[in-house]
Amino acid sequence: MNEPLTASELPRGFTFAGMHCGLKKTKLDLGLLLSEVPASAAAVFTMNQVVAAPVMLCRENMKKSHQKIRGIIVNSGNANCCSGPEGYAASVATAQKLSQELGRVDPSQFLVCSTGVIGAPLQVEKILVAMPELVRLPKGDPWSFEQFARSIMTTDTVPKWAAEKIRIGKKQVRIAACAKGSGMIHPNMATMFAFIATDATIASPLLGRALQEAVDPTFNSITVDGDTSTNDTVALLANGLAGARPLSADTANYRLFCEALESICKTLALAIVRDGEGAQRVIEIEVRGAPSDNAADQIARTIANSPLVKTAFAGADPNWGRILAAAGRSGVKFNFERVDIALAGFEVCRGGREYPFNEVTAHEKMLDKYVPVIVNLHAGEGHARIWTCDLTKEYIHINASYRT
Amino acid sequence: MNEPLTASELPRGFTFAGMHCGLKKTKLDLGLLLSEVPASAAAVFTMNQVVAAPVMLCRENMKKSHQKIRGIIVNSGNANCCSGPEGYAASVATAQKLSQELGRVDPSQFLVCSTGVIGAPLQVEKILVAMPELVRLPKGDPWSFEQFARSIMTTDTVPKWAAEKIRIGKKQVRIAACAKGSGMIHPNMATMFAFIATDATIASPLLGRALQEAVDPTFNSITVDGDTSTNDTVALLANGLAGARPLSADTANYRLFCEALESICKTLALAIVRDGEGAQRVIEIEVRGAPSDNAADQIARTIANSPLVKTAFAGADPNWGRILAAAGRSGVKFNFERVDIALAGFEVCRGGREYPFNEVTAHEKMLDKYVPVIVNLHAGEGHARIWTCDLTKEYIHINASYRT
Repeated sequence: MNEPLTASELPRGFTFAGMHCGLKKTKLDLGLLLSEVPASAAAVFTMNQVVAAPVMLCRENMKKSHQKIRGIIVNSGNANCCSGPEGYAASVATAQKLSQELGRVDPSQFLVCSTGVIGAPLQVEKILVAMPELVRLPKGDPWSFEQFARSIMTTDTVPKWAAEKIRIGKKQVRIAACAKGSGMIHPNMATMFAFIATDATIASPLLGRALQEAVDPTFNSITVDGDTSTNDTVALLANGLAGARPLSADTANYRLFCEALESICKTLALAIVRDGEGAQRVIEIEVRGAPSDNAADQIARTIANSPLVKTAFAGADPNWGRILAAAGRSGVKFNFERVDIALAGFEVCRGGREYPFNEVTAHEKMLDKYVPVIVNLHAGEGHARIWTCDLTKEYIHINASYRT
Repeated sequence: MNEPLTASELPRGFTFAGMHCGLKKTKLDLGLLLSEVPASAAAVFTMNQVVAAPVMLCRENMKKSHQKIRGIIVNSGNANCCSGPEGYAASVATAQKLSQELGRVDPSQFLVCSTGVIGAPLQVEKILVAMPELVRLPKGDPWSFEQFARSIMTTDTVPKWAAEKIRIGKKQVRIAACAKGSGMIHPNMATMFAFIATDATIASPLLGRALQEAVDPTFNSITVDGDTSTNDTVALLANGLAGARPLSADTANYRLFCEALESICKTLALAIVRDGEGAQRVIEIEVRGAPSDNAADQIARTIANSPLVKTAFAGADPNWGRILAAAGRSGVKFNFERVDIALAGFEVCRGGREYPFNEVTAHEKMLDKYVPVIVNLHAGEGHARIWTCDLTKEYIHINASYRT
């Protein structure tokens, strides 16, 4: 777990809360993030065709509000997915009740997010009953931020957050974010949330571009089990309350902002992989020398999702043959007799065959928390990098008994 | 494990042997299947681009010999893959030594097969030294057949075989086969062998067609972990020694033969899934009402390879939401609010939402050895069926420590 944020790291004009409303037995299960003023908003949602009701509502509200959002309400413990018209009505009712309790905010200015088990009806009355208390809680201090970060957790073992500060002219601009996710993690937004708040001044369309560019090499480049979720949401609110001048495309300040944003997304994405269900270590799969970047990406993802590769890493076994075999079924054409593989810093395969290495030393190095793999096809300039984790007995334990 | 075959079930003119040559510590690791006369041959090999040396040699020998094969020599304990020019030379040397020892058989009339760890050099001298003993062993009795079936095993917990008899005119024709495979099983021939011998009379091209048609709905419709292997081989030899009249395309006798062949392949394919590494149960995924058969197949395979679905089955958890979510990421377009799902005979989802069912009874039914799943999209006439197994802690245990 990372260090608590300090007050000076939190963006101005945002408040946070987390509470227990009864969807889970005892843990925090309802969170709220509010901006004092309508904030420019950008969001990326799951690519799964099976989409949870709250995601449908979020998409509509982004349009209706012209990307001006006042707050995000999140419940954990139930994904409100495959829940029929009642599920959608539950999300609508949540936004309406929040609007009533806060007053003078249109329901379309809220994003509603849910995470947890799929297919069970959401007991929305627990959320509605808790609402009067919830709206009294939000504060702009680190403790409240942490409560919010904890309220969105499901099988996560630690809360996850990150913050960056940049200087725009003479003004300090802050970005702070938290995320959840540990199973069902896959490229294209899989059971994960990331909520990012900044006091930068930036119009929604440009904010959307910045978010998409930050998400591709970070959240869209991690995978725990290849399963994508029905609820994933990355939302970014920018309320302008730092008082800095508006960011415009292709300026140095905008680039500064984008770098800070990507850095936050990367920190959170890696924190998600590190906390992958049952994971002991993060594996960085880098593919070089592919015919194209897309081909490299396809190979890297196939390796990253191979159960045989991932279990070998669980045993810290330098079984490079499985890595090469996974690449071979990726659908990308290449000559395997030109492939080099380095594992945890050791060259283990050269020209598609074993390159003598010390098995004991390699095994010990593979016990690290972070193990890099480099696969070079020598077939072009294509490059890609994907992060995954090992597949352990603990993953099975968590997921065989998730609902029981 | 199935019942031993009887002598009358074994095809005429075939002999079998299995012995220990030292590639494994103590278990049988070298097998030989011989036909008295050159047999019409058909074979299907791995679709993985990373191909083991013996597979390369088999492909060449099938051409060189004009699909007339005298025997199959198989070692377990080492896949002889990613082993460079020496690996290929080892396979060639194996066929040559066998040819020398038997006399009057061209080396191109042998198929050479290897299974086991990838990337480690094959100690071919152990095979060569054992050859004089090996060629003295083959006999046509059930015990020798079983020795052969055992010699090809790797992580298999049981040997696998099947046999069928049909009548062609007044002659009895026999088909007997054995198979191996339990991890890295995936459509398109993944770490699996099946060796099929028949005394039917049939020309190689027609035999090839019969084999491909039998393989698609059987060996190509099972998956254990989505990983395909570098060595997979299904080979079928027909030596004509039953003395029955030659089979011709589109006749009743040919259809009879094809049915028996497919039945054998299905028995062996299901035996492989049942023996999937760590598997407790076989799951039959049937997709109905898809836009096309291909679309149905794509959805069925995505569900069958989802770690979250497979771990839910390990816990006998009727978590249909994971099944629907896997379908949603398959790449096939459909309206999830029309989907029905039946699990172990229980309707659990109708119109994309929960259909009330008794969780306890469903859980108990899911503890069976064979659990059917039916997913109906109500979006067309497309249909597919795929078999997989559950993903258990034992799978991890086996694969994290495979080489150590």
